[in-house]
Amino acid sequence: MALVTRQELAAARERIAGVAVRTPLMPCPWADDEGRSLLLKPENLQPTGAFKLRGAYNRLAALTPAEAACGVVAQSSGNHAQAVAYAARLLGIKAVIVMPDVSPAVKVEATRSYGADVRLVPAEERDIVPRQLAAEYGYIHVPPYDDPDIIAGQGTIGLEIADDAAALGLAVDTVLVPVSGGGLISGVAAAVKLTMPGVRVIGVEPELAADAQQSLRTGELVRWSVERTYRTLADGLRTVSVGELPFEHLTAYVDDIVTVSEDDIRAAVAVLARRGRIVAEPSGAVAPAAYLFHRDELPPGRTHVAVVSGGNIDPRLLAELLAA
Amino acid sequence: MALVTRQELAAARERIAGVAVRTPLMPCPWADDEGRSLLLKPENLQPTGAFKLRGAYNRLAALTPAEAACGVVAQSSGNHAQAVAYAARLLGIKAVIVMPDVSPAVKVEATRSYGADVRLVPAEERDIVPRQLAAEYGYIHVPPYDDPDIIAGQGTIGLEIADDAAALGLAVDTVLVPVSGGGLISGVAAAVKLTMPGVRVIGVEPELAADAQQSLRTGELVRWSVERTYRTLADGLRTVSVGELPFEHLTAYVDDIVTVSEDDIRAAVAVLARRGRIVAEPSGAVAPAAYLFHRDELPPGRTHVAVVSGGNIDPRLLAELLAA
Repeated sequence: MALVTRQELAAARERIAGVAVRTPLMPCPWADDEGRSLLLKPENLQPTGAFKLRGAYNRLAALTPAEAACGVVAQSSGNHAQAVAYAARLLGIKAVIVMPDVSPAVKVEATRSYGADVRLVPAEERDIVPRQLAAEYGYIHVPPYDDPDIIAGQGTIGLEIADDAAALGLAVDTVLVPVSGGGLISGVAAAVKLTMPGVRVIGVEPELAADAQQSLRTGELVRWSVERTYRTLADGLRTVSVGELPFEHLTAYVDDIVTVSEDDIRAAVAVLARRGRIVAEPSGAVAPAAYLFHRDELPPGRTHVAVVSGGNIDPRLLAELLAA
Repeated sequence: MALVTRQELAAARERIAGVAVRTPLMPCPWADDEGRSLLLKPENLQPTGAFKLRGAYNRLAALTPAEAACGVVAQSSGNHAQAVAYAARLLGIKAVIVMPDVSPAVKVEATRSYGADVRLVPAEERDIVPRQLAAEYGYIHVPPYDDPDIIAGQGTIGLEIADDAAALGLAVDTVLVPVSGGGLISGVAAAVKLTMPGVRVIGVEPELAADAQQSLRTGELVRWSVERTYRTLADGLRTVSVGELPFEHLTAYVDDIVTVSEDDIRAAVAVLARRGRIVAEPSGAVAPAAYLFHRDELPPGRTHVAVVSGGNIDPRLLAELLAA
């Protein structure tokens, strides 16, 4: 399978301009020590609260007029659902979003608020129903990560990091990125390695859902059980394996994947709110957590960029972590 | 007194580039209705957690080498202290920060962490001591708002809003800005009116500290008592009057000042964390609060930009407001 190219990344950047927020790099003096410094890339600032909008909008904006007229279908209980719904509304495309009937009401409401036709189905049917709908009604299926346009869209984060580093005169050593299905890290790693070849790209996973680490380190695409990955609080990182195209990108471009504990994740959410003054969801806090609590396991180097992938956290959980 | 000019604003922008974060405009689909939409300018993303860095850095970077060699002194219990300390460290300038001895330990620690020489003094001596130190040791006094370089630095926010609006093809109708000593709104209003003359600039104050509204509406610079202004939870907005140079800017450039209640402020902090996924301090939440809870008192128009001036909130208060 072909890795995403510089041209695809550049095209994605043009498509998402003015739709996805051009997030800045945030220096974090509170997290610096003698030898190391941290900058955050706060994707919680996106209109739907997570990076997913970049890939979803790029995918939908790349449809031909005939395809767009068919409408789209996507399956997600989380940030991909809201991203596809929001992108579809902006582009005037019909969107059907299949969500497990156990999804939190607030996520269902948010997705509906963007005008999507939400179909609640039993959890075990969530992968079948989108395909059935696509076959029956001709909707275009928009996968969450195993797709070159999705990967290129997420990769715009890497292009922005490279641009900002150049503008700020920063020599970035390491970029830390969460890993779930692998769309985000694939795009970011491709963009980073194609524009700043010497910079290391390190994936971060919960210990309890470390399938991608195992896949990268063994060289074989492994799949964990739902029972295992669903143990982590980081609900965006419970995917049981990375996608096939993401696995190709991991193998080609990602230097290593490290893990963080559940305690690390909880502490990082609290620290990001207290000191970083941003709201991160547990999945969005794993990359800063690796810097904050596992510096010694990271490659040598001073300047670290950590992608905060999203901020859609239950407010009660945030309150609990802040009060702890 | 002379109002800040386009040239001073442009010079400030060059000075602060790469130091202050170039904050984006954040669309807030959750806050849009049929007729109105909101974009946030999140200054909580600054390294010291508030817009104050822009003015402080601009002031210090504009010192002559001889002045810089003298060192600087500033008085503040809050965001100005941290901003001056941080800017001074970056520029290699000695900074003495006079803080009331009742200041929260966390703010004293943060200011010290940037290398400043912090002097804790009884609250009633906080205005005298900096002048004494300046006279005795030759330190340059860096005021928090009544200064053209400070105003021009804060005004870079207005330049960025104008640039982003043009790039996004947005016709901004109204810019909402908190008012305390008036440095922020003076700079933003000057920048907005000099670059986008038709755009309205509306100040926002707590009802309990509405001295600037009274000053603007009566045309006379009034002073409220400390007892009155200290009633508000918005600790950054308790200044008893705007400065003289800011008053000139208000009169020249600000269309109106509206007020928000303490309940509005608390609710806005919670909504910004829950829906906007950012941490705002009470003072930082007043401009969004005016949009969210007082739309009918604002001038007609669709597109509103609200400056979120800072995010340095006590984590316990944030937890309490989120749990409410």
